Amino acid sequence: CPGGGVAKLALLSGGRRYTQRLRVQRVLCVTGSQGMPALFSKKCIEISWLLFVFFSSDIEISRAQSPKAVDVLAKEIGLLTDEIEIYGQTKAKVRLSLLERLKDQPDGKYVLVAGITPTPLGEGKSTVTIGLVQALTAHLNINSFACLRQPSQGPTFGVKGGAAGGGYAQVIPMEEFNLHLTGDIHAITAANNLLAAAIDARILHENTQSDKSLYNRLVPVVNGVRGFSAIQLARLRRLGISKTDPETLTEEEISKFVRLDIDPSTITWQRVVDTNDRFLRKITVGQANTEKGLVRQAQFDIAVASEIMAILALTTSLQDMKERLGKMVVANDKKGEPVTAEDLGVTGALAVLMKDAIKPTLMQTLEGTPVFVHAGPFANIAHGNSSVLADKIALKLVGEKGFVVTEAGFGADIGMEKFFNIKCRASGLVPSVVVLVATVRALKMHGGGPNVNFMYFTIAINFYLIAQNLQLVADGCCNLQKQIQITQLFGVPVVVALNVFKTDSPAEVDLVCKIAKESGAFDAVPCNHWSAGGRGAVKLAQAVEKAANQKNSFKYLYNLELPIVEKIRIIAQKVYGAQDVELSPIAQSQVDRYTRQGFGNLPICMAKTHLSLSHQPERKGVPTGFILPISDVRASIGAGFIYPLVGTMSTMPGLPTRPCFYDIDLDPITEQVKGLF
Amino acid sequence: CPGGGVAKLALLSGGRRYTQRLRVQRVLCVTGSQGMPALFSKKCIEISWLLFVFFSSDIEISRAQSPKAVDVLAKEIGLLTDEIEIYGQTKAKVRLSLLERLKDQPDGKYVLVAGITPTPLGEGKSTVTIGLVQALTAHLNINSFACLRQPSQGPTFGVKGGAAGGGYAQVIPMEEFNLHLTGDIHAITAANNLLAAAIDARILHENTQSDKSLYNRLVPVVNGVRGFSAIQLARLRRLGISKTDPETLTEEEISKFVRLDIDPSTITWQRVVDTNDRFLRKITVGQANTEKGLVRQAQFDIAVASEIMAILALTTSLQDMKERLGKMVVANDKKGEPVTAEDLGVTGALAVLMKDAIKPTLMQTLEGTPVFVHAGPFANIAHGNSSVLADKIALKLVGEKGFVVTEAGFGADIGMEKFFNIKCRASGLVPSVVVLVATVRALKMHGGGPNVNFMYFTIAINFYLIAQNLQLVADGCCNLQKQIQITQLFGVPVVVALNVFKTDSPAEVDLVCKIAKESGAFDAVPCNHWSAGGRGAVKLAQAVEKAANQKNSFKYLYNLELPIVEKIRIIAQKVYGAQDVELSPIAQSQVDRYTRQGFGNLPICMAKTHLSLSHQPERKGVPTGFILPISDVRASIGAGFIYPLVGTMSTMPGLPTRPCFYDIDLDPITEQVKGLF
Repeated sequence: CPGGGVAKLALLSGGRRYTQRLRVQRVLCVTGSQGMPALFSKKCIEISWLLFVFFSSDIEISRAQSPKAVDVLAKEIGLLTDEIEIYGQTKAKVRLSLLERLKDQPDGKYVLVAGITPTPLGEGKSTVTIGLVQALTAHLNINSFACLRQPSQGPTFGVKGGAAGGGYAQVIPMEEFNLHLTGDIHAITAANNLLAAAIDARILHENTQSDKSLYNRLVPVVNGVRGFSAIQLARLRRLGISKTDPETLTEEEISKFVRLDIDPSTITWQRVVDTNDRFLRKITVGQANTEKGLVRQAQFDIAVASEIMAILALTTSLQDMKERLGKMVVANDKKGEPVTAEDLGVTGALAVLMKDAIKPTLMQTLEGTPVFVHAGPFANIAHGNSSVLADKIALKLVGEKGFVVTEAGFGADIGMEKFFNIKCRASGLVPSVVVLVATVRALKMHGGGPNVNFMYFTIAINFYLIAQNLQLVADGCCNLQKQIQITQLFGVPVVVALNVFKTDSPAEVDLVCKIAKESGAFDAVPCNHWSAGGRGAVKLAQAVEKAANQKNSFKYLYNLELPIVEKIRIIAQKVYGAQDVELSPIAQSQVDRYTRQGFGNLPICMAKTHLSLSHQPERKGVPTGFILPISDVRASIGAGFIYPLVGTMSTMPGLPTRPCFYDIDLDPITEQVKGLF
Repeated sequence: CPGGGVAKLALLSGGRRYTQRLRVQRVLCVTGSQGMPALFSKKCIEISWLLFVFFSSDIEISRAQSPKAVDVLAKEIGLLTDEIEIYGQTKAKVRLSLLERLKDQPDGKYVLVAGITPTPLGEGKSTVTIGLVQALTAHLNINSFACLRQPSQGPTFGVKGGAAGGGYAQVIPMEEFNLHLTGDIHAITAANNLLAAAIDARILHENTQSDKSLYNRLVPVVNGVRGFSAIQLARLRRLGISKTDPETLTEEEISKFVRLDIDPSTITWQRVVDTNDRFLRKITVGQANTEKGLVRQAQFDIAVASEIMAILALTTSLQDMKERLGKMVVANDKKGEPVTAEDLGVTGALAVLMKDAIKPTLMQTLEGTPVFVHAGPFANIAHGNSSVLADKIALKLVGEKGFVVTEAGFGADIGMEKFFNIKCRASGLVPSVVVLVATVRALKMHGGGPNVNFMYFTIAINFYLIAQNLQLVADGCCNLQKQIQITQLFGVPVVVALNVFKTDSPAEVDLVCKIAKESGAFDAVPCNHWSAGGRGAVKLAQAVEKAANQKNSFKYLYNLELPIVEKIRIIAQKVYGAQDVELSPIAQSQVDRYTRQGFGNLPICMAKTHLSLSHQPERKGVPTGFILPISDVRASIGAGFIYPLVGTMSTMPGLPTRPCFYDIDLDPITEQVKGLF
C-alpha cells in the first residue's frame, strides 16, 4: 500500500474467524536508504540516526492500527467469558482453568525461534516471531499463537528501548506491552523484596531476643490458647518434631524451632528493582541505629533476574508455583544447611502476591492474531524463555493443526540451550521446529567486520556492514553453521530465517541461504516481515510448516544424574566449543555444597555473555581453544536449576549518559506516548 | 439475619438504581463477647485473640458477598462505556475525560471523615466512611461515593494488615483492595526509582567525562545533523541560553549545559520499595568497582512516602501532573541552586510511567455502592489524603444533592489539618461537614487508661478498656473536645461518629455523645455499621445530611505568604497546643535555603507522630506546655509543600518477629486468599 489506504481483512482460519480492520495510512519509512550512500565513504560514522530511521516509526505504525477489543479477540480464539480477566481495552489475563477444560484437546505444533550470536542491537527474533504467526494465521489460514517475554523496564528506559517487535511485525499497542502490562514484574518485585526484608528482619530479631521471647512472639496466646500455624507445623515436621501442642516442646526443641540461625555471609537472596540502577550493584545495608549494627554487604539485581521470575516462567500450576516458592533457598544456617522461604513462614504470602501474575496476558499482533506475553527472564543472567503456562495454553487453543511460536533470548547457545534443557524438562513439551534467525549485518561482524558498539547510545558502524561484502558474509557464516550444529544436538529440524534489511544485497542473501542449507538446515528463507508484515514471512511459514512434519528425534543434551561439573562441561564443550572448564575455588566449594545438600541432579542455567560463543564478548565467529572460567555457582532451588557464573556477569544494568528516557514523552492532551521504541 | 438467609435489595436512589443481591450466609462473629468475662479479672491480658475475634471474619464476610460486575456498577453511576477501563471483574479505572463531559454539573456535598488521636489499632475511620455511604445510598436513597486511599503493601504484610474497612462496612473484594489493585503504587515505585537511578548515574558520568565527551553523548549526531531534544531546549532556556543550534554553543555554554554539578551531600531524593524493609533505612550505595568509588550514604523510604505519591494525590490533570513531576527538586548543585527532574531529562518518562495511575480505581462497598480508591500517602510522614481527582470526579457523579465522603488519615490534628491546608488548597474544593470518629476504647486511653501496645503483634490491654469506666471516658473526652475545637478552626460543622464496640456500655456511649455536643459538635451519633452495615449508620447519615445544610464559613488556617517558621508555629500552637516550636540548626538552614530559593510560600506538611497531639507518642489526652522540636525541614516542590520533620520520624516501617504474612495463605485449588484482614 505505498499510497496508503484502508483494507479490511476477514480471515477464516482453522474454523475460527479472525477479523481485523487494517488501516494503512502511509508506508512509514520502511528503510534507511535515503541519504545513506553519501555516508558510505566515511570509514566510521555515528549512526544513531540509523537506529532512528529503522525504529522511529514503530510507534507510529503501532498507533496507526486500532487494535480490536481484547474480548473480541478472546472470543475468536475460543476462550469463554469467564476464562478471561480484562485489563483495559487491549489486554486480558487468561485463567488457568482453561487447561482443565481443554485437557483432552491435542497440542499444536511447537516452534522455537532462536538466533545466531547477536550484535548488541539484536537480530530481530521478536519480529520474526510476530511475522511468522502473522504469516501462518493471516496468510496461510493456520491457527497460530506467538508467546513472548514481557520486557523489563530497565532496558526500556535505559539503552535498548522496548521489545514489542518492530515495523509491520509488532505486538500492539506497543506502549502497553513495554510499560506495566498487567503488573507481573511488579508483583515479582514485591514478592522478592518481601522475602528479602523477612530474612534481615529475622536475623535482627533472633540476635536481640532470647529463645523464650522469640517463642512467645512466634507462637502467641490466642484466645487463651496457644497454637502453631499451618506453616509452623510444617517446619516442626521438617525438624523431626512431631508435637503439635506448643506447651509440650522441650527447651531444646523450642530453640531449634525459633532459630533459623542464618549465616549472613551465605545469603544468596538479593533485593530487586526493575530499573537500571548501577549504584545498587554493591551496597551496605542495616546502617541505621535501629538495626543494632547488623550491617552487611548486599546488592540489588534487576527484577527479571529474580528466582521468582524464573519460577513464574517454569511453573505448571498454582500448586506447583506455591511449592517452588516455598523451596527457594535463601541462605545457609550456621551448620551449612539450606534455609528456605518456607522456613521464614512467607510461602503463602508470596503465593498471594503472585496469584494473578501466574495468568498469561493476551494481546495481539498488528494483524490481529493472538499473542501471549508472560514472564521475562533475561537469557544471559537467567534462563531467557517465556512461560511454560503460556505455551501450554496456546498449544491447546491452536488445536492439533495449529502452531505456537515461542522465543528464546539471544543466541541458540544461550536461550535455546536453556529452552531445551530447562524449559522443556519443566514442561514435558517436545518442540517440532527451531527457527534460527540471522542477519547479514551480524554475520559480517562474525566474519571479521567491526563490532557494533552500543555503549553510550553512540553506534559506531563500519560501512562494511552496509555495503555488499560477500567475503565477510561467507566468513561470518561459521557462526550460523555452529548454531545450526548446536540445534542439531537436540535432534530438532532447523529452518534459518534471514531477517532482511534494505541494505542487504541479493547476492548476500542468497549466499547466506545457500551456506545455511549446506550446513544442515532443513531450509533457509529470507524474510521481509519488518517492512511487509505477515506477507513478508509467508515463505518462512511454509518452510516451518513443512519442517514440522519432519521426523523429530528430540533429546536433552545431558543426563540430570551426572555430577554438576560434568553437566557444565558438556554444555561448555558441545555447545560453546570450549576446550574445558575451570572452576574457581569458590565455585568448586559451592558445587560440593549443593551436591552434599542433595541438589546435584538439577539442570544447569549458565550465566554467560550473549555476545560470543565464548566467555569473551569480543570473540566473534566461532572461538576455539578457550577454557571457560566458572567464577561462582549459585542455585535456584525453587526454579529448579544450578546457576554457574561464567567470568564476570553483572546482574544489574546501568544507565548511559543519555538514556532512552531523554526521548520519551507524554502528550498531556492526546495522552499519546512519544519516543518509546 | 441471625439465622442466615438471602435478601435481595433493589434501591432507587437519586434517580439511579443500585441493585444488589445481598447474601447473608450467617452472622459472622459480630463481637468478642464470648469467653471474655472470664478474662476480665486479669489485669493485663494477651489479646491478640481480640483482634482475631474482631477482624478474622472480615474476609469471610467479603467473600460471602458476590460483587456485581464493575461495568454494571459503572453504568449505574452514570459512566459511559468509553470512560472506564476494566481491570478484572471488580475493578475499573475511570478516565479523566469525564471531568470535561460533566464540567457544568454542580458538585455534590463534600464530607471529610477524620478522627480523634488514635490507638495503634485505629479507631475505624474507614469503616465509618463505608458505613456512612452505605447508609446514605442504600438506606436514605441519596447518591453517594466513598473515596479511600490505596493501602501500602508494607503494613498489609507487616503489622497492620489490610485497610478495606471491616465487618459489614467493607470495600469488596478485600483481597483486590489490599493487594496490587490496579498497580498505581507499583507505577510510583518505578517512576521514583528511575529518577533515583538517573541522579546517581548522572553524577558518575559527569565525574568521568570531559565537557566535550558529555556534550557529544547528550547531543549526538543524528542523520548527519545534531539537534537538541525538546527537554534539552527547555533546559537551555532555563540557563538563559537562547541558541537552538548545538554547533553554536560556546565552551562555557556547553559546560553549563552538560554539567548539573549535583552536590551529592544535598540529595534529598530517596529510592523506595512498598515493603517494610528496615535494613534499607540507612545504606551505602555505589560500592561496586564500576561506580569508581562514588559511594554515598542513602536510604529507601516506603513507596507511599514518595513525592510522586503526593503528586498523584494532589494533581488535577495530566498536564498538571507532568508539570509537577518536572518541578520536583532532587538535590542542589554545588552553587546551592535546586536541581530538578526536568534538569535530568526524565519528566516525560515519569509522566509515561504514571499515565494510568492518574485514573482513579472504581470498586464497591459490601452493599454495592461506589467507591474510588486512589493514592495512599501515609498521614504521619506524608499528607495522608486520597486523591483530589477521585474526589472531583465523585462530586460530579453524585450530582448536586449527592454526597462524597473522603477520609483523612489518623487524628484530625494530622490528616484533617493537611486536608484543609494542603489538599483543599490544591483542589479549590470546600468541605461541607467533618465527621469525627471516636471510640470509647481510645477515649479511655486518653483518660489515663493503659496504652494499647501494638509492638510485636502482642497486644497488652487492660480490662479498664473493656469494662465500663465512666470516669476514664469522661477524662479522655478532653482529646475529643480538642479535636472538635481544631475542626472549628476551619469553620466547618462537625458531627461526631462514635464507633460502637460490643464492649461499650450504653452509659459510656451516652456520655461521649453528651460531651461531644457540649463541646460544640453539631451532633454526636453512635454507629453500628461494623455489625449492621449501612443500617447501623443511618442516624449518622441523617445527622451528616442535616449538618451539610448548615452555614459553612470554611477558611484556611494560615496565609501562604507568611514565613515558613511562622506557618509551622501556627500549626504547632493552634492545632497541636504547643507552647512554641524549636528548630534545629539544620532545620533553620533548610528554611533559609528554601526561602532564598523562592519556595517560602508553600503550605506546610508536618511529619509528626499520630499517637499524640504532641511529638511524644506516649503523651495522651491533651498535652500542653511542650516545645515542638523541628529536627529537619525538607521540600516537596512538585507536590507543593514544605515538609518539617518533628522529632525522629522513620520513613520506613519494619517487620516484627511474627509479621502478618505468617497467617496469609493461598489455597491453590480454590484460589482463595486466607488470613488477609
